[in-house]
Amino acid sequence: MAQPDHDTSISPFAPAQLADVPQISGVRFATCAAGIKYQGRTDLMLALLTKGTAVAGVLTKSKTCSAAVSWCRETLAAGAAGTDHAQARALVVNSGNANAFTGQRGRDAVKLTARAAADAAQCDLDQVLLASTGVIGEPMQAEKFTHLLAGLADTATTDHWHEAARAIMTTDTFPKLCTRTVDLGGTPVHLNGFCKGAGMIAPDMATMLAFIFTDAPIAAPVLQELLARYAKTTFNCMTIDGDTSTSDTLLAFATGTAQSAGAPKITNSADPQLAGFAEALHDLMREMAILVAKDGEGLTKFVTINVAGAQSWEAARIIGLAIANSPLVKTAIAGEDPNWGRIVMAVGKSGEAAERDKLAISFGDIEVAHQGERAPNYSETAAAAYMKNPEIEINVDVGIGEASATIWTCDLTHGYITINADYRS
Amino acid sequence: MAQPDHDTSISPFAPAQLADVPQISGVRFATCAAGIKYQGRTDLMLALLTKGTAVAGVLTKSKTCSAAVSWCRETLAAGAAGTDHAQARALVVNSGNANAFTGQRGRDAVKLTARAAADAAQCDLDQVLLASTGVIGEPMQAEKFTHLLAGLADTATTDHWHEAARAIMTTDTFPKLCTRTVDLGGTPVHLNGFCKGAGMIAPDMATMLAFIFTDAPIAAPVLQELLARYAKTTFNCMTIDGDTSTSDTLLAFATGTAQSAGAPKITNSADPQLAGFAEALHDLMREMAILVAKDGEGLTKFVTINVAGAQSWEAARIIGLAIANSPLVKTAIAGEDPNWGRIVMAVGKSGEAAERDKLAISFGDIEVAHQGERAPNYSETAAAAYMKNPEIEINVDVGIGEASATIWTCDLTHGYITINADYRS
Repeated sequence: MAQPDHDTSISPFAPAQLADVPQISGVRFATCAAGIKYQGRTDLMLALLTKGTAVAGVLTKSKTCSAAVSWCRETLAAGAAGTDHAQARALVVNSGNANAFTGQRGRDAVKLTARAAADAAQCDLDQVLLASTGVIGEPMQAEKFTHLLAGLADTATTDHWHEAARAIMTTDTFPKLCTRTVDLGGTPVHLNGFCKGAGMIAPDMATMLAFIFTDAPIAAPVLQELLARYAKTTFNCMTIDGDTSTSDTLLAFATGTAQSAGAPKITNSADPQLAGFAEALHDLMREMAILVAKDGEGLTKFVTINVAGAQSWEAARIIGLAIANSPLVKTAIAGEDPNWGRIVMAVGKSGEAAERDKLAISFGDIEVAHQGERAPNYSETAAAAYMKNPEIEINVDVGIGEASATIWTCDLTHGYITINADYRS
Repeated sequence: MAQPDHDTSISPFAPAQLADVPQISGVRFATCAAGIKYQGRTDLMLALLTKGTAVAGVLTKSKTCSAAVSWCRETLAAGAAGTDHAQARALVVNSGNANAFTGQRGRDAVKLTARAAADAAQCDLDQVLLASTGVIGEPMQAEKFTHLLAGLADTATTDHWHEAARAIMTTDTFPKLCTRTVDLGGTPVHLNGFCKGAGMIAPDMATMLAFIFTDAPIAAPVLQELLARYAKTTFNCMTIDGDTSTSDTLLAFATGTAQSAGAPKITNSADPQLAGFAEALHDLMREMAILVAKDGEGLTKFVTINVAGAQSWEAARIIGLAIANSPLVKTAIAGEDPNWGRIVMAVGKSGEAAERDKLAISFGDIEVAHQGERAPNYSETAAAAYMKNPEIEINVDVGIGEASATIWTCDLTHGYITINADYRS
């Protein structure tokens, strides 16, 4: 089948151009068109990582996770994730088939792929990470592409970031690639990340697939701690349709090659030298998560929901997600309707503590509800005019406590229905 | 504003004709067009109940419930719901305004309405029940209709069931009225119920508004126990969009007038004479809930989801709701796409125990997945042909235990987007 032809228009929120990113010493990519499902585009990516690259990962909590996710979980555990021995040498990603719910054949396909990648990268099996994205339940014929891995390894280069970001796309309308450079102990280090959406996107994990690479010498336990911490407030605070993928995979690789240029090796997450790197990583992950929301299937609006006055960050997040995942809120935004009553409804259904008679809501700077009822100076005209903006900010104060959270999402449109009512057939 | 003119076509699942229901001695109705929001249709209903009518209720769990729901909760508590002293004499329902998130003005509107109804029905304030449905956050001007209640009381008759079922509608495309007659201790007793949907429909409570009337002499505590028990497996197993209303209200009224014809007074839920009545009530509630799902906004398919092999009924229900509320499952059904991989995803995201490698899925009699992978004899042609049916049955066995649950829902279509992207403006 050809690449979905339902809607090839590009998200209005796509960056004007794909980011130029620096090379990261110790990371090489190669991609090719293996014809796994799509025709006329790349669908297979191999990343090679230099010896000693530390790896960390956060994986979907789905009970029906893909064979590739199971492999990563076992491999990270075997490599003693969270210890300094968690090392990776190769990452293989394919699009077009999720290899999820494929039983024994799926596990066999994973082993076959890992074996071929280990041979190509001349590394151990447990130094290979895998990710697959695409249709669920379709048996994956790994032999369709495993013979290509050796050739990819031979041609891998340090500058194929754009190609790598493109090869992992499914219904994404644009590749998502971000970069940061930050000082680590007097030496500049780089972080590059790319990821894909764009449907079946909801927290725990929300990323579908996201990969981050850095030359900073960060020990695996420290990398794991940072990755897990910031996943909570970035990828796990972003939702498109509330549907959690079987394949969500976030991996971070630290080659440590900047050590030769003088960057200090960080083995303790309390090391004060880490602060800048940690902030840059958090910031990079936030940008990546926002790019996924900005490419939500069929979207016409990008929406930021700020929940304040909650009992805890967790409560604020759940309230924000209840708003973000409400079909009625999402369709109202699509219709440019300032129907804030539906936000009241969503707060009410979240199950988290909220003080009905203190609830306040604003769209951007326009106050619409105050002290549990319509704001005294509410102007339907002003609110309706605000809703015409492509980027909408919804601020909710639930009047209970001091905690807050921010959630990113998009609207629910005819485009989403069109894309998803015939994605597979 | 005129009645929503976005889509006046009637659900394909509307019964061929509105049920003819028997009168229930002790229950009278009157309706009128008060012009609360809609023009050219009735929007106010008064039900008068004879002295000694027992009442029971199940109300939304929303933290931002409407003023009318708060009133019912307080009134049922004041009337000692669950004791034999819970009595009702009047029920006032308006459509067009939910009187939710309207602060002190909302509470004032409720008091004004209850006072006028108590005067009209010549009863105490705490014998009046109220329900409102429509837009949230719009101040309700009760004085627009309270002066009409005395006139309604004067003209109320025992045969206005169709009129009552119509007056409470909002985006419903057909009125929903059901009836049962059952033997109680040798005497036939009647149960009539009507309800409304058709968006912002999700469990806890899922009914929006539902009212049940019977002449059976059932004491309030028994009625309350039955109503709460069966709400779990009927209204709370039905979902349209996963959005929980601020106004969901299920009330049951037992006039007890069949006692004069010989029906025994039931004061103990363990009374063996109650069995037939209880079964009829459960059956009536199931039919009402299914009618709401069959009028889901914009639906083209009615969907029944049977989950088996779960750890408990609660787990089976949560898994069923995860499937029923998944936008990706709902759009696949709309697209007549047998995309069972999305059902695997929904099971995985539910958070309930499921054995990935034992999971089995069928559409009607067509097995699509078996032992955690695509069924060996899977036929895409047969599955795709099945999806053309207007009524779809999805059977899932999660391979853990013995418990099961059934959920009713509908598909997610362009029609839903059209209706909800401009319901209010």
